[in-house]
Amino acid sequence: MGTLRQKTSLEDIYAPVQEKLKKVPDTVLAILTSPNDLAGEVIRYFFSRQGKLLRPALTLLGAEMFNRGPSGSGGDPERRLLHLASAFEVFHSATLIHDDIIDSAYIRRHIPTINVKWGPEVAVLVGDYMHDRANRTIFYHGDEKIMALFLQTAGTVCDGEIHEIKEKDNFNLTEEEYIEIITKKTAELLACTVEAGGLFAGATPEQAAALKRFGRNFGIAFQITDDCLDFTGQEQEFGKTLGKDCAVGVLTLPLIRLIHLVDENKKGQVFKIFKSEMGTRKYETLYAMVTETGAIDYAMARAREFSDRARLELAVFCDSPAKQSLEQLVQYVIERKR
Amino acid sequence: MGTLRQKTSLEDIYAPVQEKLKKVPDTVLAILTSPNDLAGEVIRYFFSRQGKLLRPALTLLGAEMFNRGPSGSGGDPERRLLHLASAFEVFHSATLIHDDIIDSAYIRRHIPTINVKWGPEVAVLVGDYMHDRANRTIFYHGDEKIMALFLQTAGTVCDGEIHEIKEKDNFNLTEEEYIEIITKKTAELLACTVEAGGLFAGATPEQAAALKRFGRNFGIAFQITDDCLDFTGQEQEFGKTLGKDCAVGVLTLPLIRLIHLVDENKKGQVFKIFKSEMGTRKYETLYAMVTETGAIDYAMARAREFSDRARLELAVFCDSPAKQSLEQLVQYVIERKR
Repeated sequence: MGTLRQKTSLEDIYAPVQEKLKKVPDTVLAILTSPNDLAGEVIRYFFSRQGKLLRPALTLLGAEMFNRGPSGSGGDPERRLLHLASAFEVFHSATLIHDDIIDSAYIRRHIPTINVKWGPEVAVLVGDYMHDRANRTIFYHGDEKIMALFLQTAGTVCDGEIHEIKEKDNFNLTEEEYIEIITKKTAELLACTVEAGGLFAGATPEQAAALKRFGRNFGIAFQITDDCLDFTGQEQEFGKTLGKDCAVGVLTLPLIRLIHLVDENKKGQVFKIFKSEMGTRKYETLYAMVTETGAIDYAMARAREFSDRARLELAVFCDSPAKQSLEQLVQYVIERKR
Repeated sequence: MGTLRQKTSLEDIYAPVQEKLKKVPDTVLAILTSPNDLAGEVIRYFFSRQGKLLRPALTLLGAEMFNRGPSGSGGDPERRLLHLASAFEVFHSATLIHDDIIDSAYIRRHIPTINVKWGPEVAVLVGDYMHDRANRTIFYHGDEKIMALFLQTAGTVCDGEIHEIKEKDNFNLTEEEYIEIITKKTAELLACTVEAGGLFAGATPEQAAALKRFGRNFGIAFQITDDCLDFTGQEQEFGKTLGKDCAVGVLTLPLIRLIHLVDENKKGQVFKIFKSEMGTRKYETLYAMVTETGAIDYAMARAREFSDRARLELAVFCDSPAKQSLEQLVQYVIERKR
């Protein structure tokens, strides 16, 4: 495990699939080609800032795990795989755009959100458009198994988001329920992308199931880290509005842990701060509380627990550069600052 | 044609498929079964008021056109057809819920919209959830041809809605562009539902294409009538907020015709009224203008033109109760008050 502990850049981690991954941004734009000027403008704007391309990278790495060398793959399967990987990024982007309406977020990837720049009506429709295109692309470039997996997952993601809204302001939300929500809204899609890559490249049902479990644990670790960064991150680096979970009433693990640690009296106080409108002050007060009580440390320990589970799921696979990348990626997401 | 001219109720028109159509509302709820209380509550609320069930009726009638008698259809194909028909209603409902966010509409089917009752965040997500479920249902119960047709159509609907937003407040919008927009946002889905019914029941490619053209012309006639009802309808009967197109800056055929009829000077005046915030007064002033100038009559004449074209497309089919229903439906939608 020693080599995993050193800081590795995302670029290094993506090395085994970098040639293919480089083509993802253009493929995303090709998938989203629209005769409509407005849609085209919004889409170019949104993708002018690259995200981490985690989902396409997972699909490509998932497929790469079963790579029997370049002789086995003709031009066509490679094109299909590239479209699949890109479609997952398109679907993910559609959910981000709708999320930003829900959270009234004003910054995404360092630039104003579509919701802020064009209004919710455009954000609703462009999100729908991207969702449609993702569906079509996966239908045409995947197979029946991959399409079924994706449709199942898309439903779960949405269910998770509705679940999250339903539990807004619920100070009795348990850690287990929180894990269930983030599993549905985040981890299942990450699991789907890596499993789809494996399925595409001929993984057995057992191998596909191991990849799914890897992705799910990886995703939970990823989301817990994200929720900690919502408190501890640097806005400039994180690229999102800080404290936005609290601002919209979403309880995440650091806060759930804080509520668990304090007595009833203090709990009421935390609730009052949580429900207050005090902006930056509110965020700073909560930040102090979750760090001083060790709630953040606890949350990050839980993230590491899930990341360990994720790595364990990879044990059944032979060693390969792609496998090493998946291992490094697990480490990367819990150590990241953005 | 004589018999078509008499007023026929929707129930009479649906008679050849009434047994199946009666099962649609429960099938819709079954498709949308959710473990999530909030989603369940919103969905039950939305479907507590039935719409006209136009889309499922079209699918069932489209299939019924090719019915070789009950001996040919086992229990399973019937169940699949019912799910397909219901899935189109689910998809349509998802678009309505997102539309109501976009238009900030406050009444739909005589009750407050989801957007008003639960806020845009719930409306975005429940719309997404319903869209996902429609996708899955059509994937599992349709076939590859029907799924491809549906995915293509869903993209077109969304493109049409973005196109409509882009042209908001554009006083130079031509009648042709208006027809293009309503074809994409409304007519293509109606065309898809009736074509899918035909494809499901074994229509030849030529027959499917004729059904598609029928549905498209029918859909244009339907939407022009809807746009006239936005001026001339009784809110109580129509079940929607009147004057909502003008309120959100959408130009429809009555207004486009009005602008075409008046001189430059008057055009500026109309624009000022259109852009004003004067509520009921504004709506009444525009109502007087579109009726007095004959703009409404012109629009309805165009609706009849498209409804005639729709009926002509049915000429290639042998006479049957289902065919008669489609013919009557064309008449019904342009004569309706809701």
